[in-house]
Amino acid sequence: MTPADIVETASRCLSEIRQRSPRVHCLTNTVVQKFMADGLSALGAHPSMTSSIDEVASFVARTDIMVINLGTLDPARRESSGVAVAEARRLGRRWVLDPVHCNLSDLRLAFARELIDAGPAVVRGNHAEMAAISALPDSIVRVETGARDTIGFGGATIVVSNGHPLMAQVTGTGCLAGGVLAAFVAVEPDAMKAAAAAMTAIGVAAELAAPFSRGPGTFGPALLDALAALDADALQTHARIDISHAQG
Amino acid sequence: MTPADIVETASRCLSEIRQRSPRVHCLTNTVVQKFMADGLSALGAHPSMTSSIDEVASFVARTDIMVINLGTLDPARRESSGVAVAEARRLGRRWVLDPVHCNLSDLRLAFARELIDAGPAVVRGNHAEMAAISALPDSIVRVETGARDTIGFGGATIVVSNGHPLMAQVTGTGCLAGGVLAAFVAVEPDAMKAAAAAMTAIGVAAELAAPFSRGPGTFGPALLDALAALDADALQTHARIDISHAQG
Amino acid sequence: MTPADIVETASRCLSEIRQRSPRVHCLTNTVVQKFMADGLSALGAHPSMTSSIDEVASFVARTDIMVINLGTLDPARRESSGVAVAEARRLGRRWVLDPVHCNLSDLRLAFARELIDAGPAVVRGNHAEMAAISALPDSIVRVETGARDTIGFGGATIVVSNGHPLMAQVTGTGCLAGGVLAAFVAVEPDAMKAAAAAMTAIGVAAELAAPFSRGPGTFGPALLDALAALDADALQTHARIDISHAQG
Repeated sequence: MTPADIVETASRCLSEIRQRSPRVHCLTNTVVQKFMADGLSALGAHPSMTSSIDEVASFVARTDIMVINLGTLDPARRESSGVAVAEARRLGRRWVLDPVHCNLSDLRLAFARELIDAGPAVVRGNHAEMAAISALPDSIVRVETGARDTIGFGGATIVVSNGHPLMAQVTGTGCLAGGVLAAFVAVEPDAMKAAAAAMTAIGVAAELAAPFSRGPGTFGPALLDALAALDADALQTHARIDISHAQG
Repeated sequence: MTPADIVETASRCLSEIRQRSPRVHCLTNTVVQKFMADGLSALGAHPSMTSSIDEVASFVARTDIMVINLGTLDPARRESSGVAVAEARRLGRRWVLDPVHCNLSDLRLAFARELIDAGPAVVRGNHAEMAAISALPDSIVRVETGARDTIGFGGATIVVSNGHPLMAQVTGTGCLAGGVLAAFVAVEPDAMKAAAAAMTAIGVAAELAAPFSRGPGTFGPALLDALAALDADALQTHARIDISHAQG
Repeated sequence: MTPADIVETASRCLSEIRQRSPRVHCLTNTVVQKFMADGLSALGAHPSMTSSIDEVASFVARTDIMVINLGTLDPARRESSGVAVAEARRLGRRWVLDPVHCNLSDLRLAFARELIDAGPAVVRGNHAEMAAISALPDSIVRVETGARDTIGFGGATIVVSNGHPLMAQVTGTGCLAGGVLAAFVAVEPDAMKAAAAAMTAIGVAAELAAPFSRGPGTFGPALLDALAALDADALQTHARIDISHAQG
């Protein structure tokens, strides 16, 4: 696997998402629902957002991939997440876990660990969240986002250095990264390549968006514009990817 | 009824909404609450959004019109909707139903049908949602939105061809259309004319907004700007309306 | 206390918020969660938004200040608010009350009064909300926002005449003002000076934002940009503050 492979994967995933418009079901926090939905639509995917316990299985059954995001978690969504994961497992659907703020609540950390035992394809968090979770089973791709995004699986580590400091000033860019990641996993069987490609895509989009914004307020809409306009040329020109393999 | 009547109705409704600022109470999904509220405010109406069962009757009693939108429905909002509809009926208030995603859940479809039996003035949905619902009682105006919006009532059908493809890439433009429709019904007794006028207004606003956007991210704010700036001249210049009457 | 003191306080608070990035926990309505979070991030603060009863004490314990906003109140958030206030009192943390729409529901007004008895540092509302509440204990700073913002405490009244009419057309600017106010209270022990400084800051930001917007849709993002860019020079140039003291 080379940086060029990741760029090629990103371009191919983008095309497939726009062609096939995969359904991405998001059990996510109420703060970022519209921003995630808009980002997924801008990318070409088809988002849905229902968390209700009596409908979630019906939505999961009609979806290609699921994200469970733990921001503003409450007892009802915690219960729905259990139902949704059970349905996803029953149907052999992959899903992504985004353990938002699991470092700020023991209860949420315990729930994140319970979900990890149920086998998400990818776990994405920031440094503090991933540090709280610490070890992940070998079967799960680990994505730590920040100024640089680190994607780890097996003995390999991919570092994506794309992105822009304004991302940290807009609530929900991390959550949206989790959604974009899910859309890429929906069209690419290799979850590690999908994750690295997705982080490259959103990072490059952020760099292209920044000159069209005057601050964090206009950066949000500009990021969505850039996701919609992103193409293979831009990915090739701007991607900054490093790959390292463990020895032995 | 002619296309010119609809344009004239749209202009008059716009003026009245700005003068009287009707209260529009929205029992709506958490994804689009701010976008709907901002769109209604931009138009000149006065939105409120409380769904709590112990306050909803109090809000409905102080409102001119209500929208019930079924996106991200949960048991609590389902129960509140029942209370809100009962209060609206008791007070003789009209209301609009937006059966979001009723095609993706049997439970939601059954609930949509229950609400239809309670007599909304208008039901608005996209093609898949309206197909799932199929027949509506004769007393209800049927609005199917898409690349073209079709408004049907009695033997007549109005087709509004305004709008812009970017609307489909912004989550909540359909829901906002439901809110705008409600604001128009609040100031125009003929619900079919109100519905056609509302679809013309939002469609023309979308066309005026598109040149001020660089993609779906900047289109959302531009649409709100255009709703605030919309006037009789723009409606007259841009409206594309066809009316057909059943024979006999 | 002179207008120059308030401007100096506003500049100093801005610097400290950017340096110390105080945590502002918001128990707030689902409509404005992202806008408040984005505004607080733009300012330099660190927002969190969890309302769940089983996690709220954990979040309050890790936060510098709290806002309780009563918009779209439901029984679950009402219960969580009680837990959050109890935890804040136990830890000696200050908090701000924003009694949104307490004039539209007797239940909400009764709850607002209950919270006032628990001793917020500041209560912020619009004219109708503050009129519904009427008297406040002497220990609480009273902030009434509108075309002019009036801050009252003890015998003194500060009137801030900054702001822009577009604020009234964007849902959540009042709620965001409550959040900004909380961030200022987090870094300034004198709650009255903090409140007047915060209202000056958001009002000046609104004036600076307006020329970068074409209507209410683009004004929202422009306001966030302006909060991020606000500095001592802009405050000094644009602040319009009057102070009066009761006689005797």
